[in-house]
Amino acid sequence: WNGAPELSSKDGNFKMKVRGRLQTDYNAINQDRAITGSPSVSAMELRRARLGVQGTVWGDVDYILEADFANDAVSMKDAYFKYTGWGKHFAIQVGNFKTFNSLEHLTSSNYIEFLERASFVEAFGIDRQIGIGLLLTDKHYTLSAGLFGPTTGTEETFMRDVKTGSARLTFAPINEEGRVLHFGGSWRYREGATENRTNINPNNDQFFRYRARGADLHLANRFVSTPQIFDQDNFWGIEAAYVHGPWSIQGEYTQLHADVSPLFNGVDSTYRGWYIEGSWFLTGETRPYKDGAFQRVKVLNPVFEGGHGAWQLLARYDVIDLNDNASLIATCTMCGNQNTWQLGVNWHLNNHARLMFNYNQSDITGGNVGATNVNDGATIKGFGARAQVDW
Amino acid sequence: WNGAPELSSKDGNFKMKVRGRLQTDYNAINQDRAITGSPSVSAMELRRARLGVQGTVWGDVDYILEADFANDAVSMKDAYFKYTGWGKHFAIQVGNFKTFNSLEHLTSSNYIEFLERASFVEAFGIDRQIGIGLLLTDKHYTLSAGLFGPTTGTEETFMRDVKTGSARLTFAPINEEGRVLHFGGSWRYREGATENRTNINPNNDQFFRYRARGADLHLANRFVSTPQIFDQDNFWGIEAAYVHGPWSIQGEYTQLHADVSPLFNGVDSTYRGWYIEGSWFLTGETRPYKDGAFQRVKVLNPVFEGGHGAWQLLARYDVIDLNDNASLIATCTMCGNQNTWQLGVNWHLNNHARLMFNYNQSDITGGNVGATNVNDGATIKGFGARAQVDW
Amino acid sequence: WNGAPELSSKDGNFKMKVRGRLQTDYNAINQDRAITGSPSVSAMELRRARLGVQGTVWGDVDYILEADFANDAVSMKDAYFKYTGWGKHFAIQVGNFKTFNSLEHLTSSNYIEFLERASFVEAFGIDRQIGIGLLLTDKHYTLSAGLFGPTTGTEETFMRDVKTGSARLTFAPINEEGRVLHFGGSWRYREGATENRTNINPNNDQFFRYRARGADLHLANRFVSTPQIFDQDNFWGIEAAYVHGPWSIQGEYTQLHADVSPLFNGVDSTYRGWYIEGSWFLTGETRPYKDGAFQRVKVLNPVFEGGHGAWQLLARYDVIDLNDNASLIATCTMCGNQNTWQLGVNWHLNNHARLMFNYNQSDITGGNVGATNVNDGATIKGFGARAQVDW
Repeated sequence: WNGAPELSSKDGNFKMKVRGRLQTDYNAINQDRAITGSPSVSAMELRRARLGVQGTVWGDVDYILEADFANDAVSMKDAYFKYTGWGKHFAIQVGNFKTFNSLEHLTSSNYIEFLERASFVEAFGIDRQIGIGLLLTDKHYTLSAGLFGPTTGTEETFMRDVKTGSARLTFAPINEEGRVLHFGGSWRYREGATENRTNINPNNDQFFRYRARGADLHLANRFVSTPQIFDQDNFWGIEAAYVHGPWSIQGEYTQLHADVSPLFNGVDSTYRGWYIEGSWFLTGETRPYKDGAFQRVKVLNPVFEGGHGAWQLLARYDVIDLNDNASLIATCTMCGNQNTWQLGVNWHLNNHARLMFNYNQSDITGGNVGATNVNDGATIKGFGARAQVDW
Repeated sequence: WNGAPELSSKDGNFKMKVRGRLQTDYNAINQDRAITGSPSVSAMELRRARLGVQGTVWGDVDYILEADFANDAVSMKDAYFKYTGWGKHFAIQVGNFKTFNSLEHLTSSNYIEFLERASFVEAFGIDRQIGIGLLLTDKHYTLSAGLFGPTTGTEETFMRDVKTGSARLTFAPINEEGRVLHFGGSWRYREGATENRTNINPNNDQFFRYRARGADLHLANRFVSTPQIFDQDNFWGIEAAYVHGPWSIQGEYTQLHADVSPLFNGVDSTYRGWYIEGSWFLTGETRPYKDGAFQRVKVLNPVFEGGHGAWQLLARYDVIDLNDNASLIATCTMCGNQNTWQLGVNWHLNNHARLMFNYNQSDITGGNVGATNVNDGATIKGFGARAQVDW
Repeated sequence: WNGAPELSSKDGNFKMKVRGRLQTDYNAINQDRAITGSPSVSAMELRRARLGVQGTVWGDVDYILEADFANDAVSMKDAYFKYTGWGKHFAIQVGNFKTFNSLEHLTSSNYIEFLERASFVEAFGIDRQIGIGLLLTDKHYTLSAGLFGPTTGTEETFMRDVKTGSARLTFAPINEEGRVLHFGGSWRYREGATENRTNINPNNDQFFRYRARGADLHLANRFVSTPQIFDQDNFWGIEAAYVHGPWSIQGEYTQLHADVSPLFNGVDSTYRGWYIEGSWFLTGETRPYKDGAFQRVKVLNPVFEGGHGAWQLLARYDVIDLNDNASLIATCTMCGNQNTWQLGVNWHLNNHARLMFNYNQSDITGGNVGATNVNDGATIKGFGARAQVDW
C-alpha cells in the first residue's frame, strides 16, 4: 500500500498500481491594473486531475501511463516503457517523460514545496517530450541522457523534425535519512520543426517563446514574455540542495541562449532564471531524497486519531530575466525581468494529502525601453491555496 | 464487491475502487418539421462513458476522481477531496462536485428513473462547479452549503470571478427500507464573470442562457431557449418524494430569477420549472434512499440462473416555462413554455445493468408574440432507449 | 494475471481488470519531395496511449470501456455492454465496437504483425461505430452482424441519421495449437447523414473520402486520396490465413463501391484493396487464433533470467487502388494506386512487450491524367520502429 494498492503476482514478476492526483486551487491576485491593464483574479480551478496506471510485465519491463484531465482537456503525462534488465543501476526508457533538466522540474508536482515551480521551468519550456532515455542511478549519483522529439500535444504537421537532446549529472556526497547534500548540472539543446519554417505564423509550434506568470501563480497573466521568434535554444543549469533534519535549502541557476529564426527581425539573446528557497518542518519531518530528486514526505503524526499532521514553513526568491537585448528587438515590449518573493505554509494531513498556502509578490522591470512597456514598474501580489491528494 | 472490487488495506485505513459507467442511447424523434424546421432524428450515441477511481488515504481523507469521455471529449465529473475526520455526520469537501440543488440533480445518473433529468436541471444550469462545501448528514436530515467558482470547462479568461453560493436542507421524517418520505428545499445564487463584461459576446461563459431539449431527449434540438443576456440569477426549489414499497412518487417546483446584463436590452425575468413523476416496480423492488437522494435499486431476481430482473413502469409530467416577459425582450423569439408527457419502462438486469425505454411528447407554446416564434404550437414526439452498465 | 491482474469475487460472478497499452513510434520517411512536394519526416509520437477497464457484473453481463489519449486528444475505443446469458456461443453487445469487417481490422493493434494495418482498413473507413451487434462463435466458425450509427467523434449535428450495416462469417476448418486454416468474408453498407446534405461542406462528417498514408507509415502524408464527395458506400472483402507452427501466411481482397452525392459532380466508382503477408518465428513461437482473429503470441523464452525473447521475420505486399474513373472526376487529381512492399522484424521481449521494425516502400501511379497529378511516379520509402507494452 502506497496510497493505492500495488497488486502483485505471486512470483512478483507482474505488478500493477492505479495512480492519480487531484489538486484544487484558489488564487486571489492583484494584477496592478493601473500599470498592466489586467484585472484582479479571484478564481478556483482544478490545477491537476490525473489518472493513470503503472506496473511491471514479466520481471524487468515496467510501464507507466498517466493523463491529466484538468480544464476538461487531455494532457498526456508520464507514458513510457522502461527496461531494467541490464542491472539495478541501469534503465532505458521510451515514451513520453521529462527531459533530464532541473531539480525543480524533476521533483514531482506532488512533492514540490511551493504551489508552482520556479518560473524558469515554464519560461524555458522545460517539460515532458517524446523520446528515448538512458538512466544510471546509484545512491550517490545519477547520470541520464536522452534524445527527444516533440511534446505530446504537438500538431502532426509540426512533429516532423523537432529535435531535442538533454542530459543531467547529479552527485550527492551525503545521502542519508535526514541529511542530504546534492549537486547537479544539466543541459538541453532544442531545435524547432525546420521543414515548415517558411510559414511565418507566430502560433506555430515550431517557434519558441519564453514567458512567465505573475507572482508565480497559475491563474495570473503573463507580464514578462518574449515574442515567438526563436527557432533554436541551448539551456544549461546548475543545482544544489542541502537538507539537515527539518531544515532544507535548495537553489538553481539557469541560462538559455535563444537563436532568432532568420524569418524574423531580432538578435540572439541570453535569458536567465534562478531561485533560492528554504524550508523548515516545525513538526520534525525531513525531505526524503532519491535518484536525484526530492520524494514523498513521511508525516510523523498524521491527522487521524489525534495527530496534528506535518507543518512546514517556506520562503523563496525567484528571478526570471528576459531583458537581454530587449531594446534591440522591436517586438520585445514585454521582455522584462520579474523578481518574486514567496512565503508559504504547507500542512501535510498525511503522506498523501496536504493543504498549501502561498503569499507571493512580483516586481517587474525592463523591456524594450524604446517602445512602451506597459508592465515596467508593476507589482503583482497574490495569494494561492491548494488542497492536494494523491494515490 | 459493489460492481467493481473495493480494495482495502488490512487496517482499513486505505481503500481504493475503480469506478465507471457506460450508457449507450438510441433516440428516434419527430421534431415537427412543419413548425420548427428541424429534421427528424434517428441516432445512437454514447451518452455517458466514464472512468474514475475513489478511495481513502489514511483513515479520514477520501477522494474521488472521475471523467467522462463521451463524444471523444473530456468532461471532468466528481473530483474532490473530502475530509471526514470531524465525526461521522460531518464532511468538508474541496474540488469539483454538484452544487447542492434539486433531488433530481443530486440523484446519480445511474439511479434516475427516466433517461434525462427533468428539464429545469439543464435549463437552469444546475451542474457541478469547482468549490468548497460542508455537509451534515444524518438518517433523517441533510444540510449542505458551498461556495463555488466556475465549471471545469470554463476558459481561463472567464474563470476570474465567477461566484456561486448554494445550500440545501432536506428532511426525511420516514426513512426505512421500503418506506420513505422526503421533503427538501434548496437555493443557488450565481454571478457571471464581471471583469470581462465590457465585451459583448453572447458565446461568453460570463452570460447565462436558459434552454431545454425537445421531448426531454438528449439528441433533440432545443425549441425553448432564452437569449444569452443574463449576468446574475437566483434559484430556489422545493422537493418532495414518497416511497411505499414498489410505489414511488416524486416532484419538484423550482423558480429562477434572472437579471439582464446592462449591456443588453431586456427586462429581468422569472422562469419556472416543475415535474411530478410516479413509478411502480412490478417485481416488488423498492427505491432506496440515503443522504437526501435516491440510490441503487437492489434487484430481487437478477437475470442470471433463471431470474427475470426487475421491471419498473414510469410516468412523468415535466414543465419548463421560459415565457415570462417574452414579449418585452426583442430577442426572446424562443422564450416559450414546454410541457412534456413521459412514459417509461425500465428493465434492471441486475444491480449494475439496466435497459431503459421512454416515450415522450412535448407541447411548445408562447415566446415573443410580437416577433415570429417559429416554435409556438409545435409538438415534439420521441422514443429513447438506453443500455446502461456501471461498476 | 494477464499483464494486469483480473480481480474476481469469490463466486466468480463479478470480475474487473484494468487494461491499457502504450505504443511509442519513430518514423523516418523519404517522401520523394521532387514529385510530391512533401518534406521528409523524422519524428516520434505516441501512436497509442490507452487506458480502460473491463469486467463482469453479475454473471453474464460484461463490459469494457477504453479510451485513447494519444496526441492529447480523447478517442473512445471499445466501450460496450455485452450480454452472454443465452449460452456460451452467443453474445449480444451494445455500444462502441469494431464493425464486423476484415481479419486485419478485427485483430487487436497489440497483435497485428506490422506497425500499421493494410492500407484499405483506413482508406475504406473500417472502424469502430456505435451500434448493436450479435455474435455467434464456436471453435470452427463465427457469425456476426450489427447495425450501427456514427463513430464516437461525430459532431452531434451529423449524428442524426448515419446508418451502417455490417456482417461477417468466418470458417476455420483447422484450429488447433500451432495449426490454423481460416477463411472469411464480410460486408458493410454505409450511408452518411442525409438530413444535412443540402450543405456542401467537404469537411462534413456526412460525406466519405478514401485515402491512405505513404509507405504504410502513420506519420507519412497521404499521397493517394479521393475527394470528399461520396454519400453511400458498399464494401465487401474476403480473407484467408494459414498458420503452420512458426510459419504464417495471411491475405485479404476487398472492394468498395462508392456513390457520389448528387450535390457534387463525379461518377460512382469502385475501389480495391488487397494484401498478402507472411511471417516466420525464428524462435519457434506460433500465432494463436480464436474467434475469427489472431491473438496474443506466447513467448517461449521471455527476456528475463537469460531468455532471448521471440524473434519474428515478416514480409508484406499491400495494394490500395483508388484509380477507378479518376479521369472522369475533375477533382480526382490524387485518386491513384499505391503498391507497398514491407519488410519487418518483431522482437517480443515477453507476452506483453515487443519492439517492432519495418522498412516499407510505396510506388504511386495514376490519378486524373487530364489534370496534373503531382504524385504519379512517386516512391515513398520509410523506416518505422515501435516500443509496445500492453497490460
